[in-house]
Amino acid sequence: MANIAVNKTAHAFDKSRLEALLNRRFFYAPAFEIYGGVAGLYDYGPPGSSLQANIISEWRKHFIIEDSMLELDTTIMTPASVFETSGHVARFADWMVKDSKTGDVLRADHLVKNVIEARLAGDQEARGLAAEPPAADEADKKKKKKVDKTKKAPVRLSDEDVGAYERILATLDNFSGPELGELCRQHKITNPDTDNEVTEPQEFNLMFASSIGPTGQHPGFGAIFFLRPETAQSHFLNFSRLLEFNNGRIPFASAQIGRSFRNEISPRAGLLRVREFTMAEIEHFVDPEDKRHEKFHEVRDVVLRLLNRDVQSSGRTEVTSMSIGEAVDKGVVANETLGYFLARIYLFLTKVGINSERLRFRQHMSNEMAHYATDCWDAEIHNSYGWTECVGCADRAAYDLTVHSKKTGHALVVRQALREAVVTEKEVAEFNKKTFGKTFGKDGAAIQRAVNGLDDAALLKAKGELAQGSTTVATAEGTEFTLTADLVTIERKTLKQSVREFTPNVIEPSFGLGRILYALLEHSFWSREQDVERGVLSLPPLVAPTKVLIVPLSAKHEFGPLVREVSSKLRKAGVFSRVDDSNTSIGKRYARNDELGTPFGVTLDFASVQNRTMTLRERDTTGQLIGPIDEVLAVVTDLVQGSIDWAEACKKLPAYDGVQAVE
Amino acid sequence: MANIAVNKTAHAFDKSRLEALLNRRFFYAPAFEIYGGVAGLYDYGPPGSSLQANIISEWRKHFIIEDSMLELDTTIMTPASVFETSGHVARFADWMVKDSKTGDVLRADHLVKNVIEARLAGDQEARGLAAEPPAADEADKKKKKKVDKTKKAPVRLSDEDVGAYERILATLDNFSGPELGELCRQHKITNPDTDNEVTEPQEFNLMFASSIGPTGQHPGFGAIFFLRPETAQSHFLNFSRLLEFNNGRIPFASAQIGRSFRNEISPRAGLLRVREFTMAEIEHFVDPEDKRHEKFHEVRDVVLRLLNRDVQSSGRTEVTSMSIGEAVDKGVVANETLGYFLARIYLFLTKVGINSERLRFRQHMSNEMAHYATDCWDAEIHNSYGWTECVGCADRAAYDLTVHSKKTGHALVVRQALREAVVTEKEVAEFNKKTFGKTFGKDGAAIQRAVNGLDDAALLKAKGELAQGSTTVATAEGTEFTLTADLVTIERKTLKQSVREFTPNVIEPSFGLGRILYALLEHSFWSREQDVERGVLSLPPLVAPTKVLIVPLSAKHEFGPLVREVSSKLRKAGVFSRVDDSNTSIGKRYARNDELGTPFGVTLDFASVQNRTMTLRERDTTGQLIGPIDEVLAVVTDLVQGSIDWAEACKKLPAYDGVQAVE
Repeated sequence: MANIAVNKTAHAFDKSRLEALLNRRFFYAPAFEIYGGVAGLYDYGPPGSSLQANIISEWRKHFIIEDSMLELDTTIMTPASVFETSGHVARFADWMVKDSKTGDVLRADHLVKNVIEARLAGDQEARGLAAEPPAADEADKKKKKKVDKTKKAPVRLSDEDVGAYERILATLDNFSGPELGELCRQHKITNPDTDNEVTEPQEFNLMFASSIGPTGQHPGFGAIFFLRPETAQSHFLNFSRLLEFNNGRIPFASAQIGRSFRNEISPRAGLLRVREFTMAEIEHFVDPEDKRHEKFHEVRDVVLRLLNRDVQSSGRTEVTSMSIGEAVDKGVVANETLGYFLARIYLFLTKVGINSERLRFRQHMSNEMAHYATDCWDAEIHNSYGWTECVGCADRAAYDLTVHSKKTGHALVVRQALREAVVTEKEVAEFNKKTFGKTFGKDGAAIQRAVNGLDDAALLKAKGELAQGSTTVATAEGTEFTLTADLVTIERKTLKQSVREFTPNVIEPSFGLGRILYALLEHSFWSREQDVERGVLSLPPLVAPTKVLIVPLSAKHEFGPLVREVSSKLRKAGVFSRVDDSNTSIGKRYARNDELGTPFGVTLDFASVQNRTMTLRERDTTGQLIGPIDEVLAVVTDLVQGSIDWAEACKKLPAYDGVQAVE
Repeated sequence: MANIAVNKTAHAFDKSRLEALLNRRFFYAPAFEIYGGVAGLYDYGPPGSSLQANIISEWRKHFIIEDSMLELDTTIMTPASVFETSGHVARFADWMVKDSKTGDVLRADHLVKNVIEARLAGDQEARGLAAEPPAADEADKKKKKKVDKTKKAPVRLSDEDVGAYERILATLDNFSGPELGELCRQHKITNPDTDNEVTEPQEFNLMFASSIGPTGQHPGFGAIFFLRPETAQSHFLNFSRLLEFNNGRIPFASAQIGRSFRNEISPRAGLLRVREFTMAEIEHFVDPEDKRHEKFHEVRDVVLRLLNRDVQSSGRTEVTSMSIGEAVDKGVVANETLGYFLARIYLFLTKVGINSERLRFRQHMSNEMAHYATDCWDAEIHNSYGWTECVGCADRAAYDLTVHSKKTGHALVVRQALREAVVTEKEVAEFNKKTFGKTFGKDGAAIQRAVNGLDDAALLKAKGELAQGSTTVATAEGTEFTLTADLVTIERKTLKQSVREFTPNVIEPSFGLGRILYALLEHSFWSREQDVERGVLSLPPLVAPTKVLIVPLSAKHEFGPLVREVSSKLRKAGVFSRVDDSNTSIGKRYARNDELGTPFGVTLDFASVQNRTMTLRERDTTGQLIGPIDEVLAVVTDLVQGSIDWAEACKKLPAYDGVQAVE
């Protein structure tokens, strides 16, 4: 019985079944549900919270502990000036359009995507082909229904239009606001709910605003504080302290797990687009002249599915499988450190249970990437909404540290003692302050800048001319002045530089934990072959909310001592268990825990009381084993810690064919 | 060498030294420091983040896992209507006064406290007695200085005034806003910075406001959203889902760790009064008729230092040490469940390192407690600011569930099948709808309410009168009506009730993690007897940010393989270590890590390379042991896990007297 093969694909994925399960078992639910709920805000219930806590715990081990990163826990409320400097006040916005009659607000890119996808689907239908499942991550169900309603009949498009639409979809992230407006006019895209025209796209800043203190005006910061839309800025602001903590050395990375906020225009798609979310961010500070990574050799052979910029620009979406070593060698990925993190991200995601065949790394296209970034890749996970960005990994160059440094006057730089001082010889001009001032007055400074701006050869030439009597120099404004030896002398000097000062570059992997969690739930969900109603979440033991379910035959007192013993022994072994002594059949209790993703169950019955035996059930196969309580506990501990798998467990304990096996 | 006694009290506690250490080692720092900093907002650096993460991890084990609580992770942005219902919009406020000339804002109770304390200190000085260290938690240093500045000379007070002032300080939490205003007038309390009079106290709501969505108006919720000032409300809103998750049974508890926000009027006192903080809250739902706790026997003998309501009301502050069993038996603490949590809070705080002699449980006075609460105790921890509330533990009765239920129409109740149905007989009135409507028109409903409101005896009397012909009934408005048998009949009926429906009560332990963390840092700090500059943080291994420091003699390559081996073996054993291979002496590196609270250090030197030996150093004693690398690793793992102490370690490994011992 124990080791039967399991067919997880007997039933096609059914999102409504999964959603019903997640709601019924309180993985998460709309926040303020009894008050009517608020779009884009969710509360995680016990299994969702535990799943998230386990993902975070593994993230901390995989990234922070493994690479000795410096963890931070920083403030959410942020003065506007910080985000003015970072560029968020000016640029952290989405394009929105309004229905010209009702005033309803729509996100411009989502509108274009939804309407074009609906038209392409209609075209497929008109051509007598089955409509494909939507590939876009915003193909919201209700929306689609509404589109279908206002559409009179499936319309066949010209081949030319089909081609144009497909190119638009493949490059949608590349369009600016005005270009989206142009698309709406050109392709007669209207609000599908009303058929009304929409206004020109306007920018809408996505940060939530608040104010601080009893007067609403904070001295030095004014009225506006924002809720951070990412944790990154606080890493940059604390750079000097972090560097000092790391004894002045780079490379090093800081890391933070925390809540961030985005005032989405029209949140939908469940956990994929929300107004409040937990993210995990790493800022790896590196020498701009040396982006090698000392542990790159450890990940060199990890093979990733890459969708690079050139392929997308030509309107295609096929991925190339390539080892990260090869990708860096060929320059597909910009440098070793970026490559190291892409591989580590892949290893993390697959470890927590993401299906590697539904994971790709997509390079940002030119318009999509911030102007300062060198290279940027998104880890995208495929799910019923399409391909969704779950982790971004960007080389942000020196942008952030530079702008904050400039704004505040605090140098955010690394000072490195050079092993050997760099000795250089060059011509240096020295000015006679007294005569210079008298001769040139307020022009003096401009003339000195002009002289100091000359290269070595030009200075050498001027030196020769001075020896002959005089030389001329032109200021930036183009005025020429004559200089003589009593005003300036030029001499060859030896210069010694023993410290190198530079602004580090930043490689930033940034994780949206809610998106990963949702994708993982989709990848884990299936229904039993014999009964589509019996949903199972095959979460890996590493992240499953509860590892072991303890099922006494009934809530009767005689099982109490054994339940407490097993429970306490599991706790000591570090294995999180729950007891279900509710008044239903063991089969029903197991079914409920299949929905919760609990990988193992142990049953305590009269035989347990008499003989101290216990059965052990595996979630996916429903196979059962039996043995003395302590032996079963040892096996289940090994299973949870991943040191053995179920096939190995089946060799350690005999199969059980008792009554509970009949489910 | 190994086991020398340590004198931790050779130097008096010096807050400025501790603050300098916390700042230098980046435990925490003002947020947005390079932009000038914002009062009441702090960023935790690497050691502060780790310390907090370790405290949280232990909290999760001690409370959530130990008592199988249901964890939540809910939304921060909250619609105003939720806090209107909970009472926060009306009452979650502090009293503030303004300087009548400058408009500067001060918190009324803090003003009274600061000024009175300064006057009492001046009186002590005038009487020729040394001023005592301030006992209040708001004795901010700078403030005190300013008070001293405007004070011309120490003024001796009348004995009567001294008595009055001391009574005010002991009962300050009991004063309302108008009463604080009265105190200012009566005792001529002015703004100490300017000597100007202050305005009448006004209420200032402490919630941060924001708005949501692109129009700033959320359908159904209006314009205002608040950042939650506590996590509790979301537990109550999700009550029905939690109850269902727990198979419909109570008692059970939900728990949440998360960020909350309070717009403090004038934050000071470092981490003790901040605008953004991480809290951990438990809501334990219990049958109002049975507040026993099944595990109370496990904590019965835990002795707590209690400061009860009556003692405080008489203006005194002495604590009584009492076992929680006795306290509940005597009615000092209201019930077993509240008592269970007080004891568990005590066990948690002392486990993470709080000094039990500086911990007391203070009962709320009547004005201080919310009107609906049955009983409320604060765990207060003594520190240089005085006694600070770090955990609140209240019996909130059925208040929250009742108000949200009423407001939303969602029943937040428990339905319990009764073992035996309750059978009752009583008189029941039945109305003849047709004739009743015709006879009384719109008065009908009021008359029916009046009849239904009669008790059994009154109904019996009316029944007799009806049999005689007619009876009269008066409505709530006082109008009398005559009823006859064709309008209403009264009969004795047997009623069977098989389900009991009730609103549970809530016991709420609520932890301010930043306050606990700061108090712990104060309790852990001391300086070496021989050198006051050498500060040490004696954090328990359980919560210390780093457990083991790995110190290679130098950063030379020959130590690399050993460092990696030791590091990797510790990681596998679940022991968090850091390497310090910076270019300073081993003694200096150990001193730096004494400041970071790292309990153990291992040194790798040439002997390690040749003989595979390693020394082990203990932070508090600076004692050192030596042994083969793997043996030392086994001992240090046991030390970190708490299965042995340093005295036992000294029996397992020989003492080391080598060069590094000279520090």
